[in-house]
Amino acid sequence: MTSGGDAPGMNAAIRSVVRTCAYHNVECVGIYRGFEGMMEGDFKLLSARSVNHIIHTGGTILKSARSKEFREKEGRDKAHAHLIKEGIDALVLIGGDGTFTGGLVFNGEFNFPIMGIPGTIDNDIFGTNFTIGYDTAINTVVEAIDKIRDTASSHKRLFFVEVMGRDVGHIALNAGVGAGAEEILIPEEDLGLDRLVESLKRSKASGKSSSIVVVAEGDKIGKNVFELKDYIDENMPEYDVRVSVLGHMQRGGSPSCFDRVLASRMGVKAVESLLEGKSNYMVGILDNKIELTALDKAVKGRTEINLELLRVSDIMTI
Amino acid sequence: MTSGGDAPGMNAAIRSVVRTCAYHNVECVGIYRGFEGMMEGDFKLLSARSVNHIIHTGGTILKSARSKEFREKEGRDKAHAHLIKEGIDALVLIGGDGTFTGGLVFNGEFNFPIMGIPGTIDNDIFGTNFTIGYDTAINTVVEAIDKIRDTASSHKRLFFVEVMGRDVGHIALNAGVGAGAEEILIPEEDLGLDRLVESLKRSKASGKSSSIVVVAEGDKIGKNVFELKDYIDENMPEYDVRVSVLGHMQRGGSPSCFDRVLASRMGVKAVESLLEGKSNYMVGILDNKIELTALDKAVKGRTEINLELLRVSDIMTI
Amino acid sequence: MTSGGDAPGMNAAIRSVVRTCAYHNVECVGIYRGFEGMMEGDFKLLSARSVNHIIHTGGTILKSARSKEFREKEGRDKAHAHLIKEGIDALVLIGGDGTFTGGLVFNGEFNFPIMGIPGTIDNDIFGTNFTIGYDTAINTVVEAIDKIRDTASSHKRLFFVEVMGRDVGHIALNAGVGAGAEEILIPEEDLGLDRLVESLKRSKASGKSSSIVVVAEGDKIGKNVFELKDYIDENMPEYDVRVSVLGHMQRGGSPSCFDRVLASRMGVKAVESLLEGKSNYMVGILDNKIELTALDKAVKGRTEINLELLRVSDIMTI
Amino acid sequence: MTSGGDAPGMNAAIRSVVRTCAYHNVECVGIYRGFEGMMEGDFKLLSARSVNHIIHTGGTILKSARSKEFREKEGRDKAHAHLIKEGIDALVLIGGDGTFTGGLVFNGEFNFPIMGIPGTIDNDIFGTNFTIGYDTAINTVVEAIDKIRDTASSHKRLFFVEVMGRDVGHIALNAGVGAGAEEILIPEEDLGLDRLVESLKRSKASGKSSSIVVVAEGDKIGKNVFELKDYIDENMPEYDVRVSVLGHMQRGGSPSCFDRVLASRMGVKAVESLLEGKSNYMVGILDNKIELTALDKAVKGRTEINLELLRVSDIMTI
Repeated sequence: MTSGGDAPGMNAAIRSVVRTCAYHNVECVGIYRGFEGMMEGDFKLLSARSVNHIIHTGGTILKSARSKEFREKEGRDKAHAHLIKEGIDALVLIGGDGTFTGGLVFNGEFNFPIMGIPGTIDNDIFGTNFTIGYDTAINTVVEAIDKIRDTASSHKRLFFVEVMGRDVGHIALNAGVGAGAEEILIPEEDLGLDRLVESLKRSKASGKSSSIVVVAEGDKIGKNVFELKDYIDENMPEYDVRVSVLGHMQRGGSPSCFDRVLASRMGVKAVESLLEGKSNYMVGILDNKIELTALDKAVKGRTEINLELLRVSDIMTI
Repeated sequence: MTSGGDAPGMNAAIRSVVRTCAYHNVECVGIYRGFEGMMEGDFKLLSARSVNHIIHTGGTILKSARSKEFREKEGRDKAHAHLIKEGIDALVLIGGDGTFTGGLVFNGEFNFPIMGIPGTIDNDIFGTNFTIGYDTAINTVVEAIDKIRDTASSHKRLFFVEVMGRDVGHIALNAGVGAGAEEILIPEEDLGLDRLVESLKRSKASGKSSSIVVVAEGDKIGKNVFELKDYIDENMPEYDVRVSVLGHMQRGGSPSCFDRVLASRMGVKAVESLLEGKSNYMVGILDNKIELTALDKAVKGRTEINLELLRVSDIMTI
Repeated sequence: MTSGGDAPGMNAAIRSVVRTCAYHNVECVGIYRGFEGMMEGDFKLLSARSVNHIIHTGGTILKSARSKEFREKEGRDKAHAHLIKEGIDALVLIGGDGTFTGGLVFNGEFNFPIMGIPGTIDNDIFGTNFTIGYDTAINTVVEAIDKIRDTASSHKRLFFVEVMGRDVGHIALNAGVGAGAEEILIPEEDLGLDRLVESLKRSKASGKSSSIVVVAEGDKIGKNVFELKDYIDENMPEYDVRVSVLGHMQRGGSPSCFDRVLASRMGVKAVESLLEGKSNYMVGILDNKIELTALDKAVKGRTEINLELLRVSDIMTI
Repeated sequence: MTSGGDAPGMNAAIRSVVRTCAYHNVECVGIYRGFEGMMEGDFKLLSARSVNHIIHTGGTILKSARSKEFREKEGRDKAHAHLIKEGIDALVLIGGDGTFTGGLVFNGEFNFPIMGIPGTIDNDIFGTNFTIGYDTAINTVVEAIDKIRDTASSHKRLFFVEVMGRDVGHIALNAGVGAGAEEILIPEEDLGLDRLVESLKRSKASGKSSSIVVVAEGDKIGKNVFELKDYIDENMPEYDVRVSVLGHMQRGGSPSCFDRVLASRMGVKAVESLLEGKSNYMVGILDNKIELTALDKAVKGRTEINLELLRVSDIMTI
């Protein structure tokens, strides 16, 4: 089952789960549309061949959805009844925090074995250095900003580029460094408007002909890109400011090799851990090894921004 | 000189102009920042080798700008003085309508030989079937919508995607058909909100799980993508609507093969036409041949939308 | 039916044929694996929804094959029997010369209505300025050579890059100009080894640090890229020569916007022409209009290389 | 200085070294064409602005070369003299094993401070989990195989795809898993021809319509892709076999976000470590942290293939 916001590489994870089941002669059933489909019994038996030619595709063949009904006991009862009726013994949940929280509640009520696989572009899950889809998303952002820089630099403009990240700045920070951004505004650190202005003045004085400022949706200054533009228009009229909101294209696209391999490895571990009788864990990659983390820890824990990278960003924009 | 909005392939055109000059043993001088640089004498001698390794790059190495001062006689006098002082005999102007209009005024006052090359992503110039940058832009749009469709289809959503085109719908219509959009709103045709709603209802009824509506900036309904979302939210609550504004990334990126070849061919024709004593023309591609059109006709003329393609779009969305 | 070498955009053409049929309330049946599947009755009814989400995919969902058996009368009899049994009234053939030749023979014997759509990356079909897949293929080649140039230029190397084109040089010539190649060897023009050497010497003397020579498979000098390397190794030891054969990746990939739109337009025309009672034609694009050409003319005719473009290439490599 | 085979991200590393120097008010001099340019005094002062707009470019602006002369004491004396004359205090070497070995010899003779940064697509350097350029290379390979699979699957063919890796199979193994290859032949493990045949038979029997076998240049079976094709042609005539050698395009292209960020981090660490008085180290990334490894250990050590990934590959091809 895939649930929550979709991410590139989810199909590679589905393929891996299905084929690992086939490898161990275990039947695998796909649940469509997340918890919603679980409550409606929207199931389909998946053979090893049914996941041919999906490793390179974006989105999720199982579809995804957010469900209010599953938050009620009644909804979960329905879901449980369908699982029992279908003869399903364990669940692999591919998604993010919300998905895992739902899974924990479900496990608590029915003692139903579950295993989580972190699939989200935000890279905001504790217990894994990388979530599936994140590497693809930062490449998508960097390619988009490369294009924007062409025109920024032709016209000597300042661009505010908004990227995804309501609570965490991983995409903004990494893609910002990768794209050579002049400043990066993230939820974890309040740069302050004064420093932004000062930094842009320094950038102009140093002879740069154009500037890109990457802004996470939930940046701590608390202004969105349009408000930032207004502020700079007023306080630095020497700049010709433009705004670009990258939006949902960040969620799609063919997954990078890294995400495909990561998803393949995680799928194997998820199925084999369930076969070993484990439950309530999330598969993660920690220091290049595939490891398990207790699912409640994964949900409660908080990833932290790489402070070294913030410093690298500062140095690069001299 | 490049002027106005930049477009992918402008560097390929610059390279072609420079090398064709070298081929004919003519000195070539680059004018930086459009008419602004012309008025300031921001010139640089360009050799055949100075344009190495730029054919594949977006933006313009000569930079671009829009200039108010050049609209005054005084500004144009300054520009003319710089050209004379530098010993320049003729101008190649790479840009769009605004650039050519400025060139015509300049030619009228000083009888200075000029030749235009159409460089703009909008494909809105009379006298050429294709402008430099347009083919790259529609590929950029189609690739972005492919990514958006991944997530639209995973979540069964309706997306309004805004693309460039204030006055003409070429990008919206071609990229819309290329991306398999359900509806395409362009400045040339008023679909009407009723038909949009009807079309979306038909689409839903026919079993489509997601929909993309491509909207040109200047669509004739007169609503922007956010207003359209509000309207659908109110009138078709069964839809989960999202909005994406592609923005300035459409202007950048490595040019497609088509744009590089087109720019190379146009650059040769522009220089050789000037050497033959011609002036006040724009180079264009008409029915796959490189042809000249009088510059005033190019400026006054109006390109028309391909009605056959509108019909193809209708049929494809059954 | 798709047949012969596959090309990006074939799926967009299939989608267009299927949906145009649905639009006109005509049943549409897909024939799998070209003439081979036709002889085996490998058919499947295709609804408008069955071609969802294929416009952006490479390859062909109907598969393709080359068939020896269809060259025998017996094979064609079998194919005809299957068509009659299935109640099929007319054929749309998507492919190249070989496919159309097979279709003509079939039509001659059984007076079975056929309509051709040119799908091949080679762009070698008379009666159309562009075949489906060609634009994508030249973009693929240009992107690959852009990568090769990075390393060629870092190491000051000479690269021979072989691209597809056994009989025609369209891909080599256009992608060569687009990639900024120093020389382009095509089947239509014998440059001669002497001129190649002379040209490379001039290139070196002019200060170029690296060189790319694009070679069509069937170049008229009659040497393949490995023989060319040997020749240069012997005659110009100052060069560090490398070879790259791009191969089958040229046939795949997500189609460009141009190819998707072209395929969509051609599919509509093919079906509607059959509905108007026409037969034995090929749909083509001539001077930006969708037109019909008699199928025997399309098969017998010969496309010609653009001599102007050869000259542009010469000038660009000064 | 960059030396040896070039890799995407080398320019990002150069930019980082130059700007970190500027940040610490240290003059930075670029050495062109590796050790060759060092012996000829081919130096250029690099300011923070001189590395604008290179973070996204492939290749190396400092060029690269392999040098025989530097292997002689006389050559190294010349190089040392140039460094002293130019007032250079320390060297940052961006390259692979060969580069570092040269650096160690040089340091041993002249006690000249050096710091290595691993830049090579092969990922074969001990002391770092990832080398600069590797992530981009596996994405390039995966994208090429995605295209090949389109045509493989349309025609039900078997493809042998040769990728770089004379001594190590990192690219083949990771890109093979990422591309969904049926078999992966690497230098570290002798699969044996029998198992290859058996595996292909199983693949065919399981209903797969096409197969991709990824082969590292130095695969342990000891046959190149053309010999493998001949063997299968003879022993499995039911297969239609094709060969594709990806070649030098694997070395080029715009670096991935991962490689750009990695290069930026490594450049900072290299310069700051030299400023702290350290020498004879290589910067690496180990478990997501930037760490130093003694340069002689980096040269002597051997990276190992991920056995877990081999198993994942086996399971995926069921």
